[in-house]
Amino acid sequence: MLAIQASGYGYNTTTMAALNSQLGVNFPKGFKSAGVYCGIKKPGLLDLALIVSETEASVAGVFTTNRACAAPVRWSRQVVAGGRARAIIANSGNANCLTGEQGERDAARMAELVAKRLGCEPTQVVVASTGVIGVLLPMNAIESGVAQVFDRLSDGDDRTTADAILTTDSASKRASLEVATPAGAVRIGAIAKGAGMIAPNMATMLAFITTDAHISPADLQACLTHVVEQTFNSITVDGDTSTNDMVVVLANGASGVELTGEALQAFETGLYEVCEYLAKRIVKDGEGASRIFEVRVSGAADHATARQIAHTIAESLLVKTAIHGGDPNWGRIIAAAGRAGAPIEVNRTRLRLQGVLVFENGQPAEYDERDLVEKMQSEEVHIALELGEGDGAARFWSSDLTTEYVKINAHYRT
Amino acid sequence: MLAIQASGYGYNTTTMAALNSQLGVNFPKGFKSAGVYCGIKKPGLLDLALIVSETEASVAGVFTTNRACAAPVRWSRQVVAGGRARAIIANSGNANCLTGEQGERDAARMAELVAKRLGCEPTQVVVASTGVIGVLLPMNAIESGVAQVFDRLSDGDDRTTADAILTTDSASKRASLEVATPAGAVRIGAIAKGAGMIAPNMATMLAFITTDAHISPADLQACLTHVVEQTFNSITVDGDTSTNDMVVVLANGASGVELTGEALQAFETGLYEVCEYLAKRIVKDGEGASRIFEVRVSGAADHATARQIAHTIAESLLVKTAIHGGDPNWGRIIAAAGRAGAPIEVNRTRLRLQGVLVFENGQPAEYDERDLVEKMQSEEVHIALELGEGDGAARFWSSDLTTEYVKINAHYRT
Repeated sequence: MLAIQASGYGYNTTTMAALNSQLGVNFPKGFKSAGVYCGIKKPGLLDLALIVSETEASVAGVFTTNRACAAPVRWSRQVVAGGRARAIIANSGNANCLTGEQGERDAARMAELVAKRLGCEPTQVVVASTGVIGVLLPMNAIESGVAQVFDRLSDGDDRTTADAILTTDSASKRASLEVATPAGAVRIGAIAKGAGMIAPNMATMLAFITTDAHISPADLQACLTHVVEQTFNSITVDGDTSTNDMVVVLANGASGVELTGEALQAFETGLYEVCEYLAKRIVKDGEGASRIFEVRVSGAADHATARQIAHTIAESLLVKTAIHGGDPNWGRIIAAAGRAGAPIEVNRTRLRLQGVLVFENGQPAEYDERDLVEKMQSEEVHIALELGEGDGAARFWSSDLTTEYVKINAHYRT
Repeated sequence: MLAIQASGYGYNTTTMAALNSQLGVNFPKGFKSAGVYCGIKKPGLLDLALIVSETEASVAGVFTTNRACAAPVRWSRQVVAGGRARAIIANSGNANCLTGEQGERDAARMAELVAKRLGCEPTQVVVASTGVIGVLLPMNAIESGVAQVFDRLSDGDDRTTADAILTTDSASKRASLEVATPAGAVRIGAIAKGAGMIAPNMATMLAFITTDAHISPADLQACLTHVVEQTFNSITVDGDTSTNDMVVVLANGASGVELTGEALQAFETGLYEVCEYLAKRIVKDGEGASRIFEVRVSGAADHATARQIAHTIAESLLVKTAIHGGDPNWGRIIAAAGRAGAPIEVNRTRLRLQGVLVFENGQPAEYDERDLVEKMQSEEVHIALELGEGDGAARFWSSDLTTEYVKINAHYRT
């Protein structure tokens, strides 16, 4: 895995158990969760999720950089700044975004409702919302929903929790893993949603992660920031960063295993595994997507340059449509790299599609076009661009652009 | 017209004759042109255009910023640096891009072939190419084509010239105008092509402009740079800046009217009219486009900020698909503005769709949804975002994103 190598992850991943996609946030010790229908979405769909740690936990988070961010994002940033939390309450179907002062009050009220039941401060409750922009939350529905969801809390199967945060996703997304660190075994569990950086007037990418590791808020934040940059921040479906994006992790220490040094590094590797799996699941579930592709850029002057070029290629409509058509249209890839705003020297650039060298020395390489076209029909396409400038490397995952994407997004509301 | 006001164009456009879309580069005195079939495209399609000034002309140009730019772009940059030129030779069907050293030699050879016939230096011949990337030019075809096109040169109808630079365009694009400046009347003529910033593995946006005004290369370049930023550089179809983009203007002085001061300003206004018309034509002809939309941003801290926000909205896939669906989905517009990387204050932001106020004071405004949906079905949609920060204003034109765009670009080669 390029990203792991490039960023210096050195931990031996064979000491980890296989990733489990049938259990999420309830896998680590000392967590309970549930999801219920409270009345925001259509009946039959779950729309309110609660995750509770039995004890106070370290909390870390990464939030959207969108300036038009939603009220729950502003609320939860404050919670994370405090470093300690007990719970995450999240609704789907309504983003509580661009809803003015009433929106701010409603986000705070969601935290209060949960805090009252737990006997903690509202500032220890993370709040997240995803759904329609510009519509006030139905607070009566939320109030009765919070009562219901507490009644359903369980440390068993967490499928309802995962389902209750979905919007246009076609499937729920869970992942969990046990990591055998030098200090002892810790567990990591997570749920995520997202099928478009903004789905049709719906927001967003959300991921909630739990762990029973004992870890300080500062260390937890450092791990999360590092991992998110290479996983959730290295995927794109349509380039539209949502107003409600949020990745939050709670670490309650219930394993009794304190993480520092090498054990902390092992934990970060495990966190990477979980986040990478979910990030790829989000791309695969991208609106209308028929296949996904990986863009690896290496040999750039530095990491930032590599990232900028990989991102531009991953978001190019012409690259995304060519991938959809199974077309080894490498001119579009070099052209996208050329407009990324970073210096590239075409004469030193080498490009491989599905492992086949298609461009070097400033001109097309010799290759078997028919063979390559066949290779491009795969479910995963790999693009590798070497710049010959330095050691900077980065990677992005993206989905193809299909007529289905256009249909979903053009005809959703009207 | 916002751009004109914002940039201080003060000239009274009523002193200009109406813009003519049936004649292009042959309208000004002292220019001849023609287009022929030389054998690059399929028989029956024109693929080689020549524009000749009877006398040496001032030349100015604006070129793609793509780092993977084509050989003819590098060649023509040098021509423009020299300030004087006699002709423009342009082929379609092959971009002569990513073609290595042979590509450089071929671009120079195109200039030599023309220069020999005109008895001028090769460095006075602008060369442009548009079409498939990564394939060497068929130079035998070009050589015989240059001989043919000289035989067809005419100062009458220039339809063949306009047609010979097209690729996926659905119609040829010409514009001409006579400007009555205080110093006397001068004429401006132009042809353009483009239907995607990069069409299916084809490049590009090209515009060639002629004028019989007497104007220095430096003044010509200043006018062109200023006008292009607000016209050809303020449109987007798919955000993919091509490797071959080029706008070049030749001013041969055949009118005997020397432009300085107010007369120069009048000329720039005329140049703006011509370029704006052609830029909008390119967007209307955007691959798969069913309607176009204008994004006006005002009240930004400065022009650059306004431009950045307008550009981000104009390129957002979610905005483009909403426009396609005739959906007044304003949350996507504010969300795109919010992620543009510029500071905006949602509470001071006002948004109008088709003149209807939909958002202010950080929350939805009251409006008649059914009436607005009806207004959104128009051929041109207008988005106006006021930020309440300062005097910066900018405007972008964009086309909607349709299933047809995806089909054109996914299934073109394979």
